[in-house]
Amino acid sequence: MVKPLFDKVVLKPFKEEEKTIGGLYISSQKTDNSFMAEVIAVGPGCKIHGEQIPMVVKEGDKVLYNKMNAFEYKIDGQDLIVISQKDILAVVD
Amino acid sequence: MVKPLFDKVVLKPFKEEEKTIGGLYISSQKTDNSFMAEVIAVGPGCKIHGEQIPMVVKEGDKVLYNKMNAFEYKIDGQDLIVISQKDILAVVD
Amino acid sequence: MVKPLFDKVVLKPFKEEEKTIGGLYISSQKTDNSFMAEVIAVGPGCKIHGEQIPMVVKEGDKVLYNKMNAFEYKIDGQDLIVISQKDILAVVD
Amino acid sequence: MVKPLFDKVVLKPFKEEEKTIGGLYISSQKTDNSFMAEVIAVGPGCKIHGEQIPMVVKEGDKVLYNKMNAFEYKIDGQDLIVISQKDILAVVD
Amino acid sequence: MVKPLFDKVVLKPFKEEEKTIGGLYISSQKTDNSFMAEVIAVGPGCKIHGEQIPMVVKEGDKVLYNKMNAFEYKIDGQDLIVISQKDILAVVD
Amino acid sequence: MVKPLFDKVVLKPFKEEEKTIGGLYISSQKTDNSFMAEVIAVGPGCKIHGEQIPMVVKEGDKVLYNKMNAFEYKIDGQDLIVISQKDILAVVD
Amino acid sequence: MVKPLFDKVVLKPFKEEEKTIGGLYISSQKTDNSFMAEVIAVGPGCKIHGEQIPMVVKEGDKVLYNKMNAFEYKIDGQDLIVISQKDILAVVD
Repeated sequence: MVKPLFDKVVLKPFKEEEKTIGGLYISSQKTDNSFMAEVIAVGPGCKIHGEQIPMVVKEGDKVLYNKMNAFEYKIDGQDLIVISQKDILAVVD
Repeated sequence: MVKPLFDKVVLKPFKEEEKTIGGLYISSQKTDNSFMAEVIAVGPGCKIHGEQIPMVVKEGDKVLYNKMNAFEYKIDGQDLIVISQKDILAVVD
Repeated sequence: MVKPLFDKVVLKPFKEEEKTIGGLYISSQKTDNSFMAEVIAVGPGCKIHGEQIPMVVKEGDKVLYNKMNAFEYKIDGQDLIVISQKDILAVVD
Repeated sequence: MVKPLFDKVVLKPFKEEEKTIGGLYISSQKTDNSFMAEVIAVGPGCKIHGEQIPMVVKEGDKVLYNKMNAFEYKIDGQDLIVISQKDILAVVD
Repeated sequence: MVKPLFDKVVLKPFKEEEKTIGGLYISSQKTDNSFMAEVIAVGPGCKIHGEQIPMVVKEGDKVLYNKMNAFEYKIDGQDLIVISQKDILAVVD
Repeated sequence: MVKPLFDKVVLKPFKEEEKTIGGLYISSQKTDNSFMAEVIAVGPGCKIHGEQIPMVVKEGDKVLYNKMNAFEYKIDGQDLIVISQKDILAVVD
Repeated sequence: MVKPLFDKVVLKPFKEEEKTIGGLYISSQKTDNSFMAEVIAVGPGCKIHGEQIPMVVKEGDKVLYNKMNAFEYKIDGQDLIVISQKDILAVVD
């Protein structure tokens, strides 16, 4: 199990065939900077400049994120992304 | 539905044929850094350096924005832009 | 009408034939980093690092600005520039 | 013995054959920016912008880290990594 | 007349034949980063990070400045430089 | 004698034949970003953002440092390194 | 006379034949980033982030400095360097 630290969030990227949410087909052909995935673990939050950063995303959220600031791993054959919450741009439902 | 986080705003770019607002024809041939779109969703705001950032744009606003800092998606065939409010430069009416 | 947000200012660049002000001929052959234009709209100001930024330029001011940080648009055939007030360097009269 | 200063942490990278944890096979073929290792020493923490940084990782933790900000040494034939705790992204167990 | 804003200063570069001050011949063959000019207008000062920046140079000062951060104009045939006071390095007399 | 200012530290790099400490052979073949040396002088410390930086390394410490931020000199045939304490990563003993 | 502003310091580089101090021969063959010179004028100090920067170097000090951040001039045939005190790394005596 991957437990994110600080304000980090673990994401599971959508498989190609899953890139439809609620009937919507998602793609990001237009740019490589951002993409979509599902939240599978959320860090405890952290202090930045003396201010506690609350975690607002939760497990199961489908999110658009900034791919430029994402760290990608493959763990037991599963692609995982670790990213700071600030680089999650929006929740899709 | 795309729900922006923090100070993010979701924009719908103008189709080519819509680039006239109130009789004005808009183009940005002169530079690729900035463009125009309509606000379709506004995030809740956030704290930056201990200071709450109020959201001043609202749904329906036609805005000029800094394309350099925009994230572009295609969701269900619709082009969408997610951007921080600070990268929205002006409202056009 | 273009209404600038925050500390943004809308400028109208001088047409070539207008580049004389009060008898002075203005050119910037020496560098591409800076140029001259007339203020046509001023934003409401904003807070930066907890400090309210007052707007000191006003409509009608002829200004020298840092072209590097300017966003250029063409609206209804009119070239417009949107820029942060901090990138306006001087007023010419 | 390598004693890290400030918020630094000393890591021992996994040997290729050890890249299975709790039955999970770890790889990072997808990107060079991040990787996995075991914590072998933890610095005392430090103050950043007047705020004490607590150390939350501990010896024995298996961690994912940002390879871009890691310093790699070979000491007595053993590869070691020194890194700031902020560049440790997650604990794997 | 060019009236600088904020902490800006307007400089008039030395003509080649004037590059002797008080008997001293000035040149900057060794580097392109810095140069010399005379102050002809001084801005009102400004607040940076909540702190009022006092203007310490005055009209008539001969100064060495950092050419990298200078904005150059030609107004009515006269070369002018607009620069932040912080990029003025020294006064020569 | 070289007396470091502020938070600077003077290091003497290990000669090739000295790169064994307490029986450990040190090398950094894997990267050019970091290396090892002995502390020979320590600055008085300084204030950064209003906060006094205490000096925690002392003469005689063998340290791993970030070569990227090191300044190298040759004084009287002796190679010396001047570096900020923050770029010293760990003490080896 | 060159009077440095703020936290600036004026240095006179050592002539090749003077690069011996107290019997020590100084060179910086190993890197171009840093060098050695004598302090000939010291600025009044300045406030940075609300904090007064005291000047700790004095006329006559032989110093090692960061050449990357130095501004070089030739005034009346004499090479001069203007530099912020923070880029002076150590005093040699």
